Amino acid sequence: MNLPISFLSDFGRDDEFVGVVHGVIARIAPDVRVIDVGHDFAQGDIRAGALALMRSIQYLPQGVALAVIDPGVGTERKAIAARTEWGTLIGPDNGLLAPAVAMVGGADKIVSIENPEVQLPAPGATFHGRDLFGPAAAVIASGQATLEELGPEVDPDSVVPLMLPLVEHSEDAVVGEVLWVDHFGNCQLNITPQDLQLVGIGPGTDIVLKIGSAEFAIEWVDAYGNVEEDEGLLHIDSYGQIAVAVRNGSAVDSYPLAAGTAVTIRSGRPGLQILSG
Amino acid sequence: MNLPISFLSDFGRDDEFVGVVHGVIARIAPDVRVIDVGHDFAQGDIRAGALALMRSIQYLPQGVALAVIDPGVGTERKAIAARTEWGTLIGPDNGLLAPAVAMVGGADKIVSIENPEVQLPAPGATFHGRDLFGPAAAVIASGQATLEELGPEVDPDSVVPLMLPLVEHSEDAVVGEVLWVDHFGNCQLNITPQDLQLVGIGPGTDIVLKIGSAEFAIEWVDAYGNVEEDEGLLHIDSYGQIAVAVRNGSAVDSYPLAAGTAVTIRSGRPGLQILSG
Amino acid sequence: MNLPISFLSDFGRDDEFVGVVHGVIARIAPDVRVIDVGHDFAQGDIRAGALALMRSIQYLPQGVALAVIDPGVGTERKAIAARTEWGTLIGPDNGLLAPAVAMVGGADKIVSIENPEVQLPAPGATFHGRDLFGPAAAVIASGQATLEELGPEVDPDSVVPLMLPLVEHSEDAVVGEVLWVDHFGNCQLNITPQDLQLVGIGPGTDIVLKIGSAEFAIEWVDAYGNVEEDEGLLHIDSYGQIAVAVRNGSAVDSYPLAAGTAVTIRSGRPGLQILSG
Repeated sequence: MNLPISFLSDFGRDDEFVGVVHGVIARIAPDVRVIDVGHDFAQGDIRAGALALMRSIQYLPQGVALAVIDPGVGTERKAIAARTEWGTLIGPDNGLLAPAVAMVGGADKIVSIENPEVQLPAPGATFHGRDLFGPAAAVIASGQATLEELGPEVDPDSVVPLMLPLVEHSEDAVVGEVLWVDHFGNCQLNITPQDLQLVGIGPGTDIVLKIGSAEFAIEWVDAYGNVEEDEGLLHIDSYGQIAVAVRNGSAVDSYPLAAGTAVTIRSGRPGLQILSG
Repeated sequence: MNLPISFLSDFGRDDEFVGVVHGVIARIAPDVRVIDVGHDFAQGDIRAGALALMRSIQYLPQGVALAVIDPGVGTERKAIAARTEWGTLIGPDNGLLAPAVAMVGGADKIVSIENPEVQLPAPGATFHGRDLFGPAAAVIASGQATLEELGPEVDPDSVVPLMLPLVEHSEDAVVGEVLWVDHFGNCQLNITPQDLQLVGIGPGTDIVLKIGSAEFAIEWVDAYGNVEEDEGLLHIDSYGQIAVAVRNGSAVDSYPLAAGTAVTIRSGRPGLQILSG
Repeated sequence: MNLPISFLSDFGRDDEFVGVVHGVIARIAPDVRVIDVGHDFAQGDIRAGALALMRSIQYLPQGVALAVIDPGVGTERKAIAARTEWGTLIGPDNGLLAPAVAMVGGADKIVSIENPEVQLPAPGATFHGRDLFGPAAAVIASGQATLEELGPEVDPDSVVPLMLPLVEHSEDAVVGEVLWVDHFGNCQLNITPQDLQLVGIGPGTDIVLKIGSAEFAIEWVDAYGNVEEDEGLLHIDSYGQIAVAVRNGSAVDSYPLAAGTAVTIRSGRPGLQILSG
């Protein structure tokens, strides 16, 4: 049995770190394929990696997900492996795996990776991607070990969660934030189409996007082609979330938005609320 | 049957987009290998991607080329698959595939990818790389579908071409432009060795490289080693085109050149033409 | 027989160079797997690539290492293949392979790659990664050629070495330098734990890190968790060398360090040496 491993980290590409983990996996499990999900997440940005893994997992082949964004390396945080219907997710116990595990229906068992036999001896500090997480992924993917052989079971309630911002609803507005700015400058919000429909906002409604004290009139459209070049829009993005985008442009260049920026979406036109208030 | 897929895009590496397309292909066609040709082309730069694919294709294993640089996503541009002697090229109908198709001898059939059965359902906007182009590449590479099953044939004359700049010849000069600045700062021109020979320019001739109003004396040499360190040169590059390079340096740092810059190459020495004019 | 190829270069990712070498290998040896060790080393930085290959090689699957950082391309430097117990290392004869060859116990035979049958014809300048090194790696990895068939044997003493800085010891101090700044800003030194122990420095000792005329008190600890957030430390890194690091931070941001910076490590406290001198 050789299941594919999907590998995500903040190792960057300037060093040999990613290649060395590929090498270690190939030495242990020569016939296991490794898919690189991404390695250029900001250093230590657990949230960014966790959200990317959550968005990706349903598109990745069932098998093993190996995720290493680990600012707590060298402290007592656990290394965990979580078995789900999708497969096994392996990484540090810092919230990185939590949203993806939830996305695929939760874990039926989580273990703490402690078995020294599946770890490489390190001449000094442990490089956990190379010496612990990579080998664990390789032995699970190739069927050389079971989940139980990696280490003792841990209580799912003791596993570190990832706190994601909640959406707030008022009578005519939804307050949320930017979850993710993608490579093209599109801003995915934590707001869903259902959130907007609850306050009577839909395609065709007059909509105000409020960022700080600035208000922008914006349309909810089905496709980029429905607005002019360089014009902003709201749409349901390819993951099903509401996103702010700009046709043939970048939303972060056109609006004061970044990952984490709070936004309010309400019905109406810019300024009208103030006048009627 | 499992043919390799060579994959080129402007998705960048900061997000999970490239990895997700790999994942989708692996889910549909687990034994198909994917070679990354490059994903860091400037956003929406169809010409850069088209030229890279044209330069690469004869070095890529016969099979499937999947190319996605798609500023018109969300408009009515077609998604096409072109069958050639090399294999099948898949991407948006915006000129991206055209030079590579021509390089391998033209297409014997082009179809518009419309069959909903080879597309993934999207919860919102279609991410065409993930939901349409990737799956189409996977089913063709693994033999799960024929070209004809992807959708209806389109008239080759209706397919969007890529306009490439033509070289102009005068009695003693050739006017062209920079097609491509590579990672090392070398500037490939649209000028061929034959273009220069037509106006009597060859290795050993006195040559002037004119950029805007600036004139530079330059030599046409066989190898970098034939000029001094940090000195500029013309040579036939590894793709057979005339290129401006600098030994152990970068032509874009030494000359006012960028992709698209017009250049004139003529016999003689800098300034002499003006004096005699 | 199909051995994996581990591939390292300074080609970057902005062009199709890396993908084209993958393509060439796949055309010659369709069942050979290629692991990317890294392609974003600084242009022409032989030392950085040589050190990365040396650090990596014991973690890479035995087979073929293909390394191309080649500022001397177009001069008369040789192209070599070195057979070791680990496998075959292939690259330019400029010192790039030397530390890795030494790390795996030396070469039992080195040849100059000259056989035109394992080279691709180039329409102009030879792109050695594509036309010479890649094909040589492919035929060796797939067993289509023996080392001897690549070209004539060369005298190991004629092969270009890589000069690495030596550590100097005085009675109470060790003088060395930064070998490598990694993606996280950690600074690996050419100093080993044994070097420090020879002058009576160990975990728990008062230690001074001297950089230029600046002196810093620093601790040698086992784990990042043993110092406060944002505090500097010395430790044995995951390759067994002494490194300067900062907990949840970057050593190059906290200290005036870069690759090649000279450092002195001595017992004592900052300033005390001057007072007692």
